[in-house]
Amino acid sequence: MIAWGGVGLALGAATAGGTAAALAGDGTEPAAGAAGEAVPFHGAHQAGIATAVQDRLHFAAFDVTTRDRAALARLLREWSAAAALMTQGRPVGGGAFGGLAEAPPDDTGEAIGLKPSRLTLTLGFGPSLFAEGRFGLERRRPEALVDLPKFPGDNLDPARSGGDLCVQACADDPQVAVHAIRNLARIGFGKVSVRWSQLGFGKTSSTTPEAQTPRNLFGFKDGTHNIAGTDDAALTKHVWVPSSDGPDWMVGGSYLVARRIRMHIETWDRTSLQEQEDVFGRDKGEGAPVGKAKEHDAPFLQAMLPTAHVRLAHPDSNGGARMLRRGYSFTDGTDGLGRLDAGLFFLAYQRDVRDAFIPVQRRLARQDALNEYIQHVGSAVFAIPPGLRDERDWWGRELFS
Amino acid sequence: MIAWGGVGLALGAATAGGTAAALAGDGTEPAAGAAGEAVPFHGAHQAGIATAVQDRLHFAAFDVTTRDRAALARLLREWSAAAALMTQGRPVGGGAFGGLAEAPPDDTGEAIGLKPSRLTLTLGFGPSLFAEGRFGLERRRPEALVDLPKFPGDNLDPARSGGDLCVQACADDPQVAVHAIRNLARIGFGKVSVRWSQLGFGKTSSTTPEAQTPRNLFGFKDGTHNIAGTDDAALTKHVWVPSSDGPDWMVGGSYLVARRIRMHIETWDRTSLQEQEDVFGRDKGEGAPVGKAKEHDAPFLQAMLPTAHVRLAHPDSNGGARMLRRGYSFTDGTDGLGRLDAGLFFLAYQRDVRDAFIPVQRRLARQDALNEYIQHVGSAVFAIPPGLRDERDWWGRELFS
Ligand code: HEM
Ligand code: HEM
Repeated sequence: MIAWGGVGLALGAATAGGTAAALAGDGTEPAAGAAGEAVPFHGAHQAGIATAVQDRLHFAAFDVTTRDRAALARLLREWSAAAALMTQGRPVGGGAFGGLAEAPPDDTGEAIGLKPSRLTLTLGFGPSLFAEGRFGLERRRPEALVDLPKFPGDNLDPARSGGDLCVQACADDPQVAVHAIRNLARIGFGKVSVRWSQLGFGKTSSTTPEAQTPRNLFGFKDGTHNIAGTDDAALTKHVWVPSSDGPDWMVGGSYLVARRIRMHIETWDRTSLQEQEDVFGRDKGEGAPVGKAKEHDAPFLQAMLPTAHVRLAHPDSNGGARMLRRGYSFTDGTDGLGRLDAGLFFLAYQRDVRDAFIPVQRRLARQDALNEYIQHVGSAVFAIPPGLRDERDWWGRELFS
Repeated sequence: MIAWGGVGLALGAATAGGTAAALAGDGTEPAAGAAGEAVPFHGAHQAGIATAVQDRLHFAAFDVTTRDRAALARLLREWSAAAALMTQGRPVGGGAFGGLAEAPPDDTGEAIGLKPSRLTLTLGFGPSLFAEGRFGLERRRPEALVDLPKFPGDNLDPARSGGDLCVQACADDPQVAVHAIRNLARIGFGKVSVRWSQLGFGKTSSTTPEAQTPRNLFGFKDGTHNIAGTDDAALTKHVWVPSSDGPDWMVGGSYLVARRIRMHIETWDRTSLQEQEDVFGRDKGEGAPVGKAKEHDAPFLQAMLPTAHVRLAHPDSNGGARMLRRGYSFTDGTDGLGRLDAGLFFLAYQRDVRDAFIPVQRRLARQDALNEYIQHVGSAVFAIPPGLRDERDWWGRELFS
């Protein structure tokens, strides 16, 4: 029988070599990263934001069940170490442990033999973590980490909203993303429990304008006009928290809004092509803005209906506000009425939600023609701290110090 | 603006060329099929059974809501035509329709620009379709299409069980599989409704012994000892319905058992490596049977515990019974208790369930050590008719004639 520890070790050695060289170290990544490669875990920003969007998502929100601040800090340290290994294609424990047959294996094993698949793990802190009487963090809560207001049309399920912590796992292989979340949940047993989780089967955004833009479940190209992962100026202006915003522990970080948006595909599918194109203000085949020929032609907003999604969401209608969208399509079985429970798990990163998601969504919730076909059913907001500098750094080190 | 129909047409032309040549025409396929290729739709057997297992699954069970036999037959004809197009990477309607802006597009569009991704669509008829007073099919019900008995430990959710029709969509790209089911549901609007559906994110079986065996959510290689898609003798003996079995309309077909099996991964993850390996009778790293060195070494069943899953499921313990397993791992969010709702969506094809799934599962349900860690929560059985001969043939042609 082959020793379990030995398998891990061999795998680690086989994959670690190819990774460090190929990619930049700051969470930003050239578009060309091969599907099997590893994305560096350490850097100025957390990977999984500016990183070229991977094909699959497993997102989990956690409730912290321990009341012990030191135990929570210890867990975040353990998570950081496990994430550093898993993102490089190595099992939890690194393969050096787990050889004892009498103990549970360090790693659950289902990713053994799979490539790193560009796995990124991005951690966030929810508003509830900073509540009075929990971990003594109430004075550390960033001003920008506001509770989202209720928007017209919201029909939020509390069981799919909120969370003290979140982990966004993105990878080109879903088994790799699911494995990562499951192993973090396992390490956190007795200290955290999964509040809700979401599998995303297909990306709906691109941060690599040169690649083919993916299509959402309404059949439209989605992510055409987005912040590119290589556009440092836009990232600096709209995504990363600058030192002038603070707090210190958030500099180089970002804010994430997650919305589970149900798409009524059966209604949509009975809508004429003209109506569908009017709703977005772009055509379905090419993705070109109204009156233009090509997807990336500059839009002429006044040619679109005043209720067109793209017109309302465009920076020019929102005082220049932008965010980096990174959402995924989901299908979670049926809804009991013979309809697929399908939609968009919307993820957007930004420097300050008060200047980006909130005002844009206010406008959309009031006027967007798309509202006839969608409903927001889950919601959460998280402070995403900056990247970890090196192996001794850990998620929350500054926050908990 | 680019005409919608034009896009479809261009896509069809671009992909149709590469497909016919590459692959065999009988639903069997050499292991090497490149991920983007098309699998032929027509042949002696339906594709999606002996076909080398694709990476992703979207499975749907439908209730027939119309009471009109002719309308149902018409729908099956339309489905056959749509499936013939979609499996070859072409949109519903073939791109020749849908150019009118005033009408809903023929195809929902989210697979435009994606490769055929080895999409297969496999249709089945459930026992309830043959019930008295429905479509006059009670005398056509195959003897082998029995209702599954209740097994010890079953905890079946009726909302995730049964169904008049099923479609198994397998593809290497999940968006392609989801697109196919969604478009069939759309074509069936007013005649059928989705009863339940299941997304499978990772294959847990292999029908290509020369490829790397995938791992299930317990971290073990799954599919090691399975019927290979190229093993004609085993397929003939154990999978395809021979004319001596009948009925005529089922010759060349098969029977599918689908079981949604919840896996209690949190409990499993706290179990020692030794216990885990004892449960299966194989080791975790290599997948070798107890006492052997290599995954594909012949097992010595007496060396395994009497309750070991592999020992109990092996043909030698079941009078030679075999089936072709083709299951997928799933993760459907959480269960309200902070645990991932994860498991195996078990799919097995066989010539006669009375000689294969039923006796094997009887034994497993009573004795399998695995039962401490799993629970069967959904169940269905379907008659899978043979393949369609050509473009004029359709699913159910013989049954409805
Ligand atoms: C199910 C819901 C939604 C769907 C189907 C959807 C779809 C689309 C599509 C097809 C585009 C045009 C292509 C592109 O530039 O990416 C677009 C653009 C955009 N959407 Fe959405 N969207 C949804 C929800 C939202 C929400 C909730 C927000 C933010 C509050 C948002 C913000 C944007 C922005 C900022 C743009 C770019 C506009 C531009 O600069 O041209 N979308 N969306
Ligand atoms: C969650 C539930 C299950 C899990 C995790 C599981 C896992 C496994 C594993 C790891 C193997 C060994 C590798 C291989 O040869 O494929 C195996 C073999 C097998 N399993 Fe399962 N299995 C499950 C349920 C079932 C059920 C319900 C049946 C049929 C009633 C079944 C029938 C078989 C058969 C026939 C074999 C091959 C045995 C041999 O010929 O060596 N399994 N299973």
